[in-house]
Amino acid sequence: MSRYRYPARDIQFCLEHIAGISRLEPHFPNYGADILEPILSEAAKFSEQCVAPTNRLGDQQPPKMVDRCVQETPDFKHVYELLQEAAWTTLAASEEFGGQGLPRALEVAFNEGIQSANLSFSLCPLLTQGAVDAIETHASQELKEAYLPNMVSGKWTGTMNLTEPSAGTDLAAIKTKAVPDGDHYRIFGQKIFITWGDHLMSENIIHLVLARLPDAPEGVRGISLFLVPKYLLDENGHAGRRNDVYPLSLEHKMGIHGSPTCVMQYGETEGAIGYLVGEEHKGLAAMFTMMNNARQSVGLQGLAVAEAAYQMALDYSLERKQGSVKGSPEKVAIAEHGDVRRMIWLMSSSLAAMRSLMYVASVESDLSKTDTKHLARTELYTPIVKGWLTEMAQEITSLAVQVHGGMGYIEETGVAQLLRDARILPIYEGTNGIQALDLVGRKLAADKGAAMSSLIEEMQTDVSAFTQHVNKVVVLKSYISLLQDAKQWLLDGEVESSEAAYDFMMLSGYVIGGWLLLKGAQSDAADDVWRSKVKFYFDHILVRADSLAASVKSFSSAGVIPSVELLKR
Amino acid sequence: MSRYRYPARDIQFCLEHIAGISRLEPHFPNYGADILEPILSEAAKFSEQCVAPTNRLGDQQPPKMVDRCVQETPDFKHVYELLQEAAWTTLAASEEFGGQGLPRALEVAFNEGIQSANLSFSLCPLLTQGAVDAIETHASQELKEAYLPNMVSGKWTGTMNLTEPSAGTDLAAIKTKAVPDGDHYRIFGQKIFITWGDHLMSENIIHLVLARLPDAPEGVRGISLFLVPKYLLDENGHAGRRNDVYPLSLEHKMGIHGSPTCVMQYGETEGAIGYLVGEEHKGLAAMFTMMNNARQSVGLQGLAVAEAAYQMALDYSLERKQGSVKGSPEKVAIAEHGDVRRMIWLMSSSLAAMRSLMYVASVESDLSKTDTKHLARTELYTPIVKGWLTEMAQEITSLAVQVHGGMGYIEETGVAQLLRDARILPIYEGTNGIQALDLVGRKLAADKGAAMSSLIEEMQTDVSAFTQHVNKVVVLKSYISLLQDAKQWLLDGEVESSEAAYDFMMLSGYVIGGWLLLKGAQSDAADDVWRSKVKFYFDHILVRADSLAASVKSFSSAGVIPSVELLKR
Repeated sequence: MSRYRYPARDIQFCLEHIAGISRLEPHFPNYGADILEPILSEAAKFSEQCVAPTNRLGDQQPPKMVDRCVQETPDFKHVYELLQEAAWTTLAASEEFGGQGLPRALEVAFNEGIQSANLSFSLCPLLTQGAVDAIETHASQELKEAYLPNMVSGKWTGTMNLTEPSAGTDLAAIKTKAVPDGDHYRIFGQKIFITWGDHLMSENIIHLVLARLPDAPEGVRGISLFLVPKYLLDENGHAGRRNDVYPLSLEHKMGIHGSPTCVMQYGETEGAIGYLVGEEHKGLAAMFTMMNNARQSVGLQGLAVAEAAYQMALDYSLERKQGSVKGSPEKVAIAEHGDVRRMIWLMSSSLAAMRSLMYVASVESDLSKTDTKHLARTELYTPIVKGWLTEMAQEITSLAVQVHGGMGYIEETGVAQLLRDARILPIYEGTNGIQALDLVGRKLAADKGAAMSSLIEEMQTDVSAFTQHVNKVVVLKSYISLLQDAKQWLLDGEVESSEAAYDFMMLSGYVIGGWLLLKGAQSDAADDVWRSKVKFYFDHILVRADSLAASVKSFSSAGVIPSVELLKR
Repeated sequence: MSRYRYPARDIQFCLEHIAGISRLEPHFPNYGADILEPILSEAAKFSEQCVAPTNRLGDQQPPKMVDRCVQETPDFKHVYELLQEAAWTTLAASEEFGGQGLPRALEVAFNEGIQSANLSFSLCPLLTQGAVDAIETHASQELKEAYLPNMVSGKWTGTMNLTEPSAGTDLAAIKTKAVPDGDHYRIFGQKIFITWGDHLMSENIIHLVLARLPDAPEGVRGISLFLVPKYLLDENGHAGRRNDVYPLSLEHKMGIHGSPTCVMQYGETEGAIGYLVGEEHKGLAAMFTMMNNARQSVGLQGLAVAEAAYQMALDYSLERKQGSVKGSPEKVAIAEHGDVRRMIWLMSSSLAAMRSLMYVASVESDLSKTDTKHLARTELYTPIVKGWLTEMAQEITSLAVQVHGGMGYIEETGVAQLLRDARILPIYEGTNGIQALDLVGRKLAADKGAAMSSLIEEMQTDVSAFTQHVNKVVVLKSYISLLQDAKQWLLDGEVESSEAAYDFMMLSGYVIGGWLLLKGAQSDAADDVWRSKVKFYFDHILVRADSLAASVKSFSSAGVIPSVELLKR
């Protein structure tokens, strides 16, 4: 039986030799190079020993509704208690509210482990981190002091409430109402797809809810953000009286069964009491500040689930004996067969590129707090991290099933669960189509390509200085030029950007992945395995950029794809 | 709610204008052009009205073990009765045993419908067709007369029993024993992954079982094929006494829940009585004769499930309103958004190419019965049909989920089921890795590339005569040359064929798909929709051939991918 191993060495390599985590030291007084390895080592123990053993259980015994509450999967509460006890929830939170003030990049490294070990479970602390961010950035000092310490400690958890039946991608269509009532508001409306919207693992649940004030303008400029606790706070700041917000039902999903996806009803009777976060009508902006982290985190989930699936496939390929190779009657492990070898290296090489980008983006994100240049880079990376990593995760989890042959299709093997779990990733937190539009619309068009040009320039300068694998430098330079060309077609309006966006996003991912892999290969710490991955990536994966660039170019703005109506007969 | 529509017009177009079904008339006295449309029209009614309404039920109420029997999903028995009554099971069977003696291509057209409508259900009559073929080709006249009429009529169904726990891809490892006992044999052993291994829809089940005789040589040359009925025949040829073969358990699978996948026990006590089919030790050869049909049929399943998923996505994209387009405050259907339009056309264009290849291969298969040139072509097409169509089906079913956004991940929508169902297709009936090896090993290397060269030559001659879309002819010629080059690298041993096989198979599929689409565009019957699909395919899908060819070339035989052992730490 395959067991998950936290890839501490790979993560450390990416952080130190590709992402340059040492640059964070001046900005984070609590961080020093000496704590990286111990933290990764503890993250390994926690994810492998505490979290991983519960993953199958979440799939097989999903949460259920009991007396207007959601009863989560057995054992999850115990794991959540261990998470709290070990203070993992406090890692990157600010010291003012009980956090350790460490870089986000370390939180990402910890999250990779728990996401690989049990994606469904990991979403609960993850959403809490997001809610903490939003409250810390936008709420009043009073709200912060009342809610953040217990959320940072993990005593209370948090949720995000955006989607309604008619308002998914299009948040302008939100109908939930907020009626002023003294120093607070009464919230009325229904929200759907609320991840961990209810459960019994924590003493309170703090919902962040997008809603409209009575005088709100139409569209996205009329949406405000509210903090709505499951239990209202008593005079001592403890969870007290039940608020008028309840889970109505749970969705039956293709995967992440262990994560309760709730329909939430706000205000069945008197209205759920809520508190305004930030300014009136500025709710969407408040949600947007969380988006870089939240979207990058979904990219991380792609990396994490793909890593878990890859490890299962690797183990199986070395254990399962089937057939022989030329010149010997001996049965061999299937890893000896060329096509299985191809699949395993395809997975491992992709993962190396994905992980490189993930940690580079997370360090950029930490640097962006004090430097607008890094902020622009972070915002540019975000849709690529979310889109490219989650698309790659589809391919890798599917390959992992394939390596298992017929056993991969049997649920008890566990690898099919990872494929099912991974399938949500291109959808939630903004579909990958939306990520692609964000990339070509907001990130490219808005600054006339400045952020992308700066990235391309850095890549070009960087690779020109590479001294190892110089034959690959030539190849990479041509791909960087291809990306540069594609960017220019988009900026010049030669191609229809809404149609070409997705392929451009994927193109960006592949080229950046190639750059970072080769950057890693320049380090003395790079070993033969890394170099083999670089070779495989350049030979068999990076070449996809050719097709993508050709496809981008053909989405000519002179002749858009015909209407879909044509196809309906 | 989306409802499946049998694509009769598309199928007819492919059969008449691309596959040239009229060529079959001299070989099939019962077939004439006048019966094509009526048959497709009846197939439409049957698949849409009788079969499609049961698809969700199979997913939600899978078969279960009851008293050593498998009780199939409710309603399936009724659908099976309707199938029998309408004599659909007899379509392509030979007249000698009660069949209608029509071309296999028509059976394929019918099967597309029921596979789209309910893949799980369709596997039962499909496996029976396969068993009928095997018996008709290899069994004694006595066995044929005893079993075929009832199997052709659908009164009895059939199964294939190959796999054992240690013998999946590697059939040489089969351990099931057959002990001679008078005029029959006693079979002892366990078989796994037996599709429709037991159920209550038919009066008898005829198992075809691979087993070893006591004096059998080792390896695949020691395997014999046996016919093992669930109920032994009485003196009147009716199902009589229960034979010693029982289902032990059912697998819990990722998809095709409605199809019972059984562990079968042969010979718990006195041994299951079985009859030798064909010669001793020649069982594998007998199974191989069925393989062209069985493997092409799995390719067809890829086409069929992808078509069903595409239709759901198309409908949803036209119904679901979300967001607006520039210059208007009106909500629009999501089909109006560029990225959704891209996904829908990507699906529909791929499907047109897949369907073209499917029906071309099916007509070749019919012609192959009397002409070895067509046999070589059929055998060449088979792994490409199986491999390429089922890989495309992964992409298309996943895109269909994506078009649905969050709703796609909720099981009640139904599209997630199609993705789960489709995931078995690259695995069973020989994994796609095995298809790829079959293509480069058996099909290319064995005849020194003759069959592939003949195909490439035909493509070149064909496209040179094209008078429509001549700008695409130039493009296509360069891709045909690319395929030609890749073939030569393989034949010359420049690339490591076991590693390069998969990418070569995909490359072949994309190029052949482009050829057949453009061939269709030469016909006066081709409409704007077809031409738009051709354009999209050439602009955005065929370009993948560039990356694949580059990848194939880089699997240099001078430096194979390193051992997977390196990755295990």
